[in-house]
Amino acid sequence: MTKPRYALYYWPGIQGRGEFVRLAFEATGTPYVDVARGPGGVAALRRFLDGHAPGMLPFAPPFLVVDEIVLAQTSAILAFLGPRLELVPDDEASRLAAQQIQLTIADLVGEAHDTHHPVATSLYFEDQRAEATRRAHHFVREQIPKYLGWLERVLERGPGGLDEGGRGARAATPFLLGTRVSYADLSLFQVVEGLRYAFPRAMEAEEKAIPRVVAVHDQVAREPRVAAYLASERRLPFNESGIFRHYPELDRECSP
Amino acid sequence: MTKPRYALYYWPGIQGRGEFVRLAFEATGTPYVDVARGPGGVAALRRFLDGHAPGMLPFAPPFLVVDEIVLAQTSAILAFLGPRLELVPDDEASRLAAQQIQLTIADLVGEAHDTHHPVATSLYFEDQRAEATRRAHHFVREQIPKYLGWLERVLERGPGGLDEGGRGARAATPFLLGTRVSYADLSLFQVVEGLRYAFPRAMEAEEKAIPRVVAVHDQVAREPRVAAYLASERRLPFNESGIFRHYPELDRECSP
Repeated sequence: MTKPRYALYYWPGIQGRGEFVRLAFEATGTPYVDVARGPGGVAALRRFLDGHAPGMLPFAPPFLVVDEIVLAQTSAILAFLGPRLELVPDDEASRLAAQQIQLTIADLVGEAHDTHHPVATSLYFEDQRAEATRRAHHFVREQIPKYLGWLERVLERGPGGLDEGGRGARAATPFLLGTRVSYADLSLFQVVEGLRYAFPRAMEAEEKAIPRVVAVHDQVAREPRVAAYLASERRLPFNESGIFRHYPELDRECSP
Repeated sequence: MTKPRYALYYWPGIQGRGEFVRLAFEATGTPYVDVARGPGGVAALRRFLDGHAPGMLPFAPPFLVVDEIVLAQTSAILAFLGPRLELVPDDEASRLAAQQIQLTIADLVGEAHDTHHPVATSLYFEDQRAEATRRAHHFVREQIPKYLGWLERVLERGPGGLDEGGRGARAATPFLLGTRVSYADLSLFQVVEGLRYAFPRAMEAEEKAIPRVVAVHDQVAREPRVAAYLASERRLPFNESGIFRHYPELDRECSP
């Protein structure tokens, strides 16, 4: 059996949602082509969006092309890659847990995006700054604690959650789904990185309450392949064209 | 093998995201318990959200409880139920297509929600009316055509999308994934219903451009079990506590 040739299509120049897929490849040493950052450029990506390529019509990047499959939606891509890259345990309960964690992180990513684009993606940030300030105020006070607090409680309960006696069914583990890194852990790492970049003051305040989340983040960062990737030129820096943008006025005040 | 006992947990009184799961059960005649609308009430649901129930901690309703599994996130629930209720074809390509269509519809549902809550879910609509008006203006002009136009093009290409010669690989079919209704079709039906309720003027203008989407919607509504469900008391009416809310000021003007 020949190895599949994974082609990732995402906007060049930003980490964005594509980064969750890049991390899955990088953490496992899986060869992949980041098409729009190569010779094909954005034109290769647009060919799919414009409907000129075979297979399913992707709604938006990122999308993955492998064999005959064209698969958009980050969470669907990771649910597909998880078993293939051994980034999720074999049992169904773990796979379903990974999926719901991923989808919840995706919701958090969407909310982080909407702090700077609360009115419309078609408008510049500058044209929705007043609304952004108001939305971000609630985001840093309500949504960051809600989402990351949920991840903290999931880690506290351990993989499998509580048993019938109300105890963690299995002992606490270094990662969300056990002793090995899963794609859910990689996504946890990435969302913490993004939130730290965009909302450093809010995260400094929040991280005291979520030691387990921070520990998983740090553990992922120490994975040798992840560490090598983060130090490479393949890892794009965060910037103000991406999903996580640092606009100091949207962060918490210095003294909350 | 005994049949699984499906328990759906969702807020009583609204269709919301729970309706996408209800439709999967109703369209297939699958017995299920709509827990919070029964004697257990919302307390039974809160027991899970508060962390007092076994298994995975759900982030938010809807969640499904079956055997040992606790599964939140509408799209994950439907990906899980799809094969079990025969609401998706057997082949992997169809299942992946169903997942990405479902996730894209979920994004559209989230955007529809944010038209009336563009600042924060914790605030009343009345406290974010100005921002809502602005966001809805872009939603009805840009996002409704973008999302429903994508569904129209997916239907135009047919299941499997284009072949290498640039033609639909299979003949056009009455449903998104072939000749039988899938959960993606049920969700298409529900999002069209919701958008018609919330934005009747915008949808009247838009539907001229999406005849295939309307045809799938109508075909789903004629499925005998779906029709019986829609006529029953189990189908809650849309209202202004749900995701799809009719605030006339957020709809298109009478003469666009």
